Amino acid sequence: MALTIPEVAANARTAANQLQNVTSTQKSQVLAHIRRELEAHKEEIFAANAQDLQLAQEEVAKGRLSASLFKRLDIKGDNEEKFNTLLQGVTDVDNLPDPIGQVTRATELDQGLDLYRVTAPVGVILVIFEARPEVVVNISCLSIKSSNAAILKGGKEAYHTLAVLTRVMQSAIEGVVQDIPFPKDAIQLVSTREHIDELLQQDRYIDMVIPRGSNQLVRHIQNNTRIPVLGHADGLCSIYLDDTADVNKAPGLVVDSKTNYPAACNSAETLLVHRSLLGSDLLTKTIKSLFDHGVSLRCDPPTLQFIENSPVLGSASYKKDQQYSASTDEDYDTEFLDLCMAVKVVDSVEEAITHINTHGSKHTDCIVTETPAHAEKFMNMVDAAGVYYNASTRFADGFRYGFGTEIGVSTNKTHARGPVGLEGLTIYKYRLYGQGHKAGDFGVGANKKAYLHNDIGVDSVKNKFVR
Amino acid sequence: MALTIPEVAANARTAANQLQNVTSTQKSQVLAHIRRELEAHKEEIFAANAQDLQLAQEEVAKGRLSASLFKRLDIKGDNEEKFNTLLQGVTDVDNLPDPIGQVTRATELDQGLDLYRVTAPVGVILVIFEARPEVVVNISCLSIKSSNAAILKGGKEAYHTLAVLTRVMQSAIEGVVQDIPFPKDAIQLVSTREHIDELLQQDRYIDMVIPRGSNQLVRHIQNNTRIPVLGHADGLCSIYLDDTADVNKAPGLVVDSKTNYPAACNSAETLLVHRSLLGSDLLTKTIKSLFDHGVSLRCDPPTLQFIENSPVLGSASYKKDQQYSASTDEDYDTEFLDLCMAVKVVDSVEEAITHINTHGSKHTDCIVTETPAHAEKFMNMVDAAGVYYNASTRFADGFRYGFGTEIGVSTNKTHARGPVGLEGLTIYKYRLYGQGHKAGDFGVGANKKAYLHNDIGVDSVKNKFVR
Repeated sequence: MALTIPEVAANARTAANQLQNVTSTQKSQVLAHIRRELEAHKEEIFAANAQDLQLAQEEVAKGRLSASLFKRLDIKGDNEEKFNTLLQGVTDVDNLPDPIGQVTRATELDQGLDLYRVTAPVGVILVIFEARPEVVVNISCLSIKSSNAAILKGGKEAYHTLAVLTRVMQSAIEGVVQDIPFPKDAIQLVSTREHIDELLQQDRYIDMVIPRGSNQLVRHIQNNTRIPVLGHADGLCSIYLDDTADVNKAPGLVVDSKTNYPAACNSAETLLVHRSLLGSDLLTKTIKSLFDHGVSLRCDPPTLQFIENSPVLGSASYKKDQQYSASTDEDYDTEFLDLCMAVKVVDSVEEAITHINTHGSKHTDCIVTETPAHAEKFMNMVDAAGVYYNASTRFADGFRYGFGTEIGVSTNKTHARGPVGLEGLTIYKYRLYGQGHKAGDFGVGANKKAYLHNDIGVDSVKNKFVR
Repeated sequence: MALTIPEVAANARTAANQLQNVTSTQKSQVLAHIRRELEAHKEEIFAANAQDLQLAQEEVAKGRLSASLFKRLDIKGDNEEKFNTLLQGVTDVDNLPDPIGQVTRATELDQGLDLYRVTAPVGVILVIFEARPEVVVNISCLSIKSSNAAILKGGKEAYHTLAVLTRVMQSAIEGVVQDIPFPKDAIQLVSTREHIDELLQQDRYIDMVIPRGSNQLVRHIQNNTRIPVLGHADGLCSIYLDDTADVNKAPGLVVDSKTNYPAACNSAETLLVHRSLLGSDLLTKTIKSLFDHGVSLRCDPPTLQFIENSPVLGSASYKKDQQYSASTDEDYDTEFLDLCMAVKVVDSVEEAITHINTHGSKHTDCIVTETPAHAEKFMNMVDAAGVYYNASTRFADGFRYGFGTEIGVSTNKTHARGPVGLEGLTIYKYRLYGQGHKAGDFGVGANKKAYLHNDIGVDSVKNKFVR
């Protein structure tokens, strides 16, 4: 009999409590066994996936599922390439340093009274994702590595694949014989859509929600739970060409930020241009390059005029209402996720900053300039997870940042911001070691002790609590 | 004309954006001037406070305000002692290291492409507090030091005092002539009670809420906002006497944890006792000491029987239903905040851990033992902000931890946990410095570059972004 949502959540909490005690070695054994078992059961997984693909094909035929979503459902790929990437991902996570048990602060409060701040798992995380079934493996491995219990809610299109993947991983967890039992409920799958809102009410058991899906999904979750949500609904990134922008850098940076992968959250949606660049070779080259890469522009009156009057851009090669058109106010608040970009002229770096802080989504914004003082001002004052100087917004990514993995990108102002790696799944505990120390013995006055507050030096105790 | 709540919140956002650019020196100048101006206007402040005290006295007479709340309203103290402490507090915050601009990660992604993770202000914080008017000065200074904009919502009892204190601080901010203007709206006061719920809806502008007040206030806030709340509603701390607890440590630790300041959130509310200690000298001494300090106990059947059968405790000196009585289930979920404690026998450290993870509030819990393996298990598996070994729960405090200040204590599982200092008011930004680097140039294949991911070494660039 299927468990109720509160039962699933309570089981996850119990598992999370047990996971507080597992060692690095155990986690590594479990991850290695998960890889082996996934490999051993691959035909079963492919068969389940074929079932999902067949059902999905019918949906595509009825126009109820897009071709791109259909493609993402496939777990095998050509020559099992996608599946092998999935397996390699398990090993990659296994090879990352253990994020738990790291000492980040150590203070001697008194003789024999030592305080350590030590990284610890957040506890129970709920991950809600759409379409790509391999996410269930990736997230399970990240949860295990960070000693968290995960409740996984996938899309109904991948129902059969997700069920087999989860069952294989759970039996792999149980199959590893260890001193401390590793809880099977470290990962649990919840399958049907209607459960989302009930899951979002389990704030008694669930410590964090990570939504991986459409803007609508994320916004729905943010608006319907008391549980902290790690993620972002929008990715409205801007790139600003300052008056001293370098003609050899600007066109490439704008084109890369827009066209490298237009559907990504770190692609640029708005191009801000310093007024002094109107009529410049730099702006002509930048816009021509955007046009030549298939980008259509939504322009404010000055840029529209600039294009129309330009011998290069205003020629017959580029057509109004195809390559460019007049912008509306909404264009500056729109995440196009497509080969489309809003353009606006500003009078100063300050105006660019104000525009971004008003219209941006606090994700990643770039200034192109050869004036370091302008760059510093921009990077100080733009309130975003990533502030870039002469670098493409497309670098905003956990792998590119060197985290080895990415849970997602957060535009939150608390906990974790920007691309989030394993560290985002951790919090810390204070561990205090005494010898019968009483607070009443400290204070001002006769016979009272003062606190030492000696820095123990994190490096000397770094691995003290790695198990 | 008074501003509306959305206007106040929007002004705070504007101020927060400006505050991203202020320097350490400027913040220090502002804090020093605030201290001077508070001192210069002390008679005016005392006069406003006298007004509040007079109105409050009438409320006390009518039985609508408690004597202890009345006492906390006074800002002057004997010989202006309380006021001088307030002034010293401004200087103490000024003397703390700047929490903003600290590099916490630095990676060379490619030649000329350097990534820095740098601490940044959270943005706009809303602080809701009750009674003690000096909190407004303390929080304002902490916000300024951490470059945040603060909206301050105090209790109506301190209306006149808060108004004068805020006005003096705002004009002190404006009075400091600086290159970069320091925004007056860095601190704003909101006064009347009915504004709380409207403030809690300003998630578009406000990044974090910090409630400082009763459990009811905190719970109301947690239940009525989408803004992240930093704090704790309950402080249900436990102390567990393990089978090898030391007779020379246990009684003192239990008494200190319970009686040092019973109304504090870090006082112990539940005493868990290993069954093998029934009949022991240690338990007799511990309970006798609690009785002698005026603590009454709510006992489970085994401890009740132990007390009644004890020649010392069961004697006429200690009376049933005065010093001790039978416990109810609710007693183990109750934060007494008084000289009262629930007692329960457990069979093992595992049972103690399970009890605490079920009934505790994830604040601070202690094990008294001479078996280090039990201590490690307890400290690993108890899911609390503080896990203590032979040390009083009363050490859970920002000053005692050596943070120099305390915003509050958090039982959250994200962002900040345990006693929170200035660091809890910060998040970080990723600053990426490139030279025209495009993401499309990296990847697998011919002519593609690989990321270097060289650790730059945080120490070598620690102060690179301190302004």
